[in-house]
Amino acid sequence: MTDPRYDVLAIGNAIVDVISDATDAFLESHGLDKGSMRLIDEAEAESLYEAMGPGREISGGSAGNTAAGLAALGCRTAFAGQVASDQLGAIYKHDIEASGVDFLVEPRGDVGATARCLILVTPDAQRTMNTFLGAANQLQPGVIDEAAVADAGIVYLEGYLWDLPHAKEAMEKAMDVARAAGRKVSFTLSDSFCIARHRADFLRLIEEGKIDILFANEAEIVELAKKGDVDEAVEAIGPKVPLLVVTRSEKGAIAVEDGHRARVAAEKISQLVDTTGAGDLFAAGFLAGQAKGLDLEQSLKLGAIAAAEVIQHYGARPEADLRELASAIL
Amino acid sequence: MTDPRYDVLAIGNAIVDVISDATDAFLESHGLDKGSMRLIDEAEAESLYEAMGPGREISGGSAGNTAAGLAALGCRTAFAGQVASDQLGAIYKHDIEASGVDFLVEPRGDVGATARCLILVTPDAQRTMNTFLGAANQLQPGVIDEAAVADAGIVYLEGYLWDLPHAKEAMEKAMDVARAAGRKVSFTLSDSFCIARHRADFLRLIEEGKIDILFANEAEIVELAKKGDVDEAVEAIGPKVPLLVVTRSEKGAIAVEDGHRARVAAEKISQLVDTTGAGDLFAAGFLAGQAKGLDLEQSLKLGAIAAAEVIQHYGARPEADLRELASAIL
Repeated sequence: MTDPRYDVLAIGNAIVDVISDATDAFLESHGLDKGSMRLIDEAEAESLYEAMGPGREISGGSAGNTAAGLAALGCRTAFAGQVASDQLGAIYKHDIEASGVDFLVEPRGDVGATARCLILVTPDAQRTMNTFLGAANQLQPGVIDEAAVADAGIVYLEGYLWDLPHAKEAMEKAMDVARAAGRKVSFTLSDSFCIARHRADFLRLIEEGKIDILFANEAEIVELAKKGDVDEAVEAIGPKVPLLVVTRSEKGAIAVEDGHRARVAAEKISQLVDTTGAGDLFAAGFLAGQAKGLDLEQSLKLGAIAAAEVIQHYGARPEADLRELASAIL
Repeated sequence: MTDPRYDVLAIGNAIVDVISDATDAFLESHGLDKGSMRLIDEAEAESLYEAMGPGREISGGSAGNTAAGLAALGCRTAFAGQVASDQLGAIYKHDIEASGVDFLVEPRGDVGATARCLILVTPDAQRTMNTFLGAANQLQPGVIDEAAVADAGIVYLEGYLWDLPHAKEAMEKAMDVARAAGRKVSFTLSDSFCIARHRADFLRLIEEGKIDILFANEAEIVELAKKGDVDEAVEAIGPKVPLLVVTRSEKGAIAVEDGHRARVAAEKISQLVDTTGAGDLFAAGFLAGQAKGLDLEQSLKLGAIAAAEVIQHYGARPEADLRELASAIL
């Protein structure tokens, strides 16, 4: 097996975040479920945007955020996701490339508008996401280059991809290609409602052994396992995947690998501003640790450091120098 | 004289800021003059953007920032500036309206792309601005509604408008309309290089008594007066305008009105992040004070509070509740 060109190839929805402060009353009056991700159509995107406060536009998308974090930690990283040939698409392409990530999919003029996620941040720093997928919806199976997949140490997929009409089979194909090349497949469950939409598929992928590293937060692992609490859910899912990572917000995170359990506490922070991207950056730190051959505890620690950075400012991409923050480990 | 519909009507370039961190070495290698605003064409905007790090897009523009600050302080505010019918134009329109400002100029499809300002923030929190004016350049004299000008207690103009091909005469006309209606004209000198380009015009406006409230920072007042230091410059210009406000960064600000001098110290801040918008928000606070009938000292204090808020985060529009921050005065 040759040394891979990329440490990680991430595949996901290429989305520009539109981040605005909002009150709990605003969420209630618009029937929004705090902390969740909801898919909306263009008309609803327009009307919700109209009602929102002034925004900050910052590139986002779960796997894209993870890719930016990986590159910031010194990993050779590529990202595949579809944007349109519009201003937001140009912003997305610029930002991911300026983060040091190879952007593998050309913007297109025939796919509608670039995806945007209207993110409402409440005073408790929780984010409630409303995604208009637009161009991201048009990610075609053919654009996932099998050679690139086979040439990445880890391929990282977001569960949100299962919402796309043409992507499922392509993603499973990518998983097969990666594993056939002796690479690892990592997968994030993305969101409880996303799991509710695709639970059977996700469980089948796990049962069929297609996932090497599975990421979830507490709500997601409980939803997937249909258990009463996190411990039971981890008991149920842990033995089914080689490596399970469960993030637990301010309680830190745990990993289970071949029966061995490791834990990390959450990093201390000075101000909690916006939790968007916490899970994405935890995954970035953890995968960077794995790519660099660190042990489970150190990989978790790297995840905790990266997640702590991103929740102390608006936006889901790192702003501080992650390598410097993690210099004691790297 | 009837009670005006607006406390303030601000006119300026409608610009979306693209804010990125940069090193001093980056500024040097691109020949950029730290702290200044430079006009660039579309080709240079493309090449500089290509070289910059990941960005945050946040609506900006000097007078637009001031308008947003005024609305946040409870003033009835309108803004006139030209954007294109593109995604950035839609963002600009949304943000200024969501700030509570009446946006008076319709986006247009025949004016190129919406203006953007590539802002490089160095570790010392200084901002260096590179502006592609695009659609803002196409602000036509006819769109400045004379009735709206006459119906605002204060009209606020940015010196940057003198860079537009068609705007000068329209702006002077607006000044005349405002004064004929018994309203006040306020004017910001904007930038040292802008003054260098339009010094004769600016001095003439002052000599002809067309400006009631003049805003400048230290470098600007020195450049305008062609004096050796700020004190000499204030001595020279102060007697020529009814009210002169000079902001002095961490040294606070001074105002001179009919020979009476007032001072304010800078507000204490907990973290200096990005100085973009400091002058704009100082003007917002000061004008809000004037609109509400506060005295010179209280108006200065309101300016200092608004400026202190905006330099503690990225972006030139207020994020915190300015009215709450200023509750001891308002």
